[in-house]
Amino acid sequence: MLTVFGSTALDTIRTPTKTLKNVLGGAATFAGISASNFVKTGLIAVVGKDFPERHYQTLAKHLDLRGLSIVDGKTFRYDGKYDKTLSTRETLKTELNVLANFKPTVPEEYKKSQFVYLANNDPEQNASLIKEFDNVKFSMCDTIEFWISTKRDSVIKMIKSVDAVVINDEEAKLLTKEHNLIKCAKKMMSWGAKYVIIKKGEHGSLMFFDDVIFPSAGFSLEDVVDPTGAGDSFAGAMIGYLASKSSTSFSSIKKAVVYGNVLGSFAVEKYGLDGLLQVKKMDISKRIKHYEKMIRF
Amino acid sequence: MLTVFGSTALDTIRTPTKTLKNVLGGAATFAGISASNFVKTGLIAVVGKDFPERHYQTLAKHLDLRGLSIVDGKTFRYDGKYDKTLSTRETLKTELNVLANFKPTVPEEYKKSQFVYLANNDPEQNASLIKEFDNVKFSMCDTIEFWISTKRDSVIKMIKSVDAVVINDEEAKLLTKEHNLIKCAKKMMSWGAKYVIIKKGEHGSLMFFDDVIFPSAGFSLEDVVDPTGAGDSFAGAMIGYLASKSSTSFSSIKKAVVYGNVLGSFAVEKYGLDGLLQVKKMDISKRIKHYEKMIRF
Repeated sequence: MLTVFGSTALDTIRTPTKTLKNVLGGAATFAGISASNFVKTGLIAVVGKDFPERHYQTLAKHLDLRGLSIVDGKTFRYDGKYDKTLSTRETLKTELNVLANFKPTVPEEYKKSQFVYLANNDPEQNASLIKEFDNVKFSMCDTIEFWISTKRDSVIKMIKSVDAVVINDEEAKLLTKEHNLIKCAKKMMSWGAKYVIIKKGEHGSLMFFDDVIFPSAGFSLEDVVDPTGAGDSFAGAMIGYLASKSSTSFSSIKKAVVYGNVLGSFAVEKYGLDGLLQVKKMDISKRIKHYEKMIRF
Repeated sequence: MLTVFGSTALDTIRTPTKTLKNVLGGAATFAGISASNFVKTGLIAVVGKDFPERHYQTLAKHLDLRGLSIVDGKTFRYDGKYDKTLSTRETLKTELNVLANFKPTVPEEYKKSQFVYLANNDPEQNASLIKEFDNVKFSMCDTIEFWISTKRDSVIKMIKSVDAVVINDEEAKLLTKEHNLIKCAKKMMSWGAKYVIIKKGEHGSLMFFDDVIFPSAGFSLEDVVDPTGAGDSFAGAMIGYLASKSSTSFSSIKKAVVYGNVLGSFAVEKYGLDGLLQVKKMDISKRIKHYEKMIRF
């Protein structure tokens, strides 16, 4: 099985065409639901007592929730606004609420997970949580600007504790203090990451392993309505695919990256989680085939 | 044969690591020399009497110069400075000099060219020059911010007069007033372009034809020293490859785009024209093979 540790949130997302209020969101929600297309996925997260029952049901439909803590207090809330090109998002408000004092633990039933995804959490929490698993074959983490700016040393230590880092291009540059993405990846590999996957939004991604680079073009879409969760969906699909194959061969990891691109493309076509919730296995395999045909020359 | 119409310049290029003064540059120089790796290429351009003999010899080594006018006055000069990330260039000075009053004509020997590349010249000049060719099988133009801002209607008319447009992503957005690259391409196709190739720098390119998209990842490089002329080298290689195959099949155009990416990658690895001048046919085919292997999954 796969375990995903990260945030479950109530999001307010303001896009040029629509505003969503208190919808189900969070890095682990997107990553977990994306992964659940491939493999049984357990969630480690926390919500407050105000978490709506319908959101709980949505999670329960896709994920093993034995790792979801429901505690006194309010659920983590995020409020952000996209510009008219959908390329930059301004954070209007972040309320950590129950997330602030969350002490995650791994349920017994999850401890045998061979695949573990640590979303953009506090790097110290990520690095400590991964030690609770007994039999990890492949672990992957993400990180974000907030942790790079406030706990850079911990981010570097976290990278040492996992097999793979999946990270946005701008955050990779910020973290490594390099401008060139190959140099960024080499630095992260020198810190102990075996695989580095740099996400470039609509431009796809670069995956690095040893001295090999696997560039993969984005799946071009004409109608993008809400980029929220695209990167988390990418990461979830990637590790979900690997877990489903129980493989960490280089060739599987390359395919996993392509699945990541494709699930990211489904995520941004609809508002909030809708893209992921509506996608069917057949849609995924159809788009993978389409992609393979598209890039052939 | 292929004819390339565009600027030949004396460039001053300030990069974070080196400043080049009055080196041989210009859109047609890069495009023509890039194309000359594939096919006999004729240049239509103008220089002043101050144009150094050694630059003339460099051009003569690669290009048919019957279309090069040498006139009284000074050669077109450009002076620009890159930021430390090499991602933006500030123009410090542009001296049109002999370019200002240049009335290009097509030498008799070039009139049978089946392939014609019109670089980022005045769109009215481009649209009028293409009519002087007797037997064009494939014509392609580029354009830049300056013309989009000052002569947008003429740019649109020029697009109607050619088969393909090759253009930077930011300029495509500016020209079409769209944010999404598929929408940009559709608009240019509605104006009459059969093929649209959008260049995305290090992220590669998107090629559009009918309802088909061909995304192609960039060839990743660790050491980029001078991005000058990358887009022109891309375009030159693309049309040079097509001319060498005398083909405009969709499959040839896809391959041509890959050659474009690869020649662009050689251009940015060295300062000024050096990348293009030093590349050998064997280097090109080696990198094409490397690229094919790289993107396979």
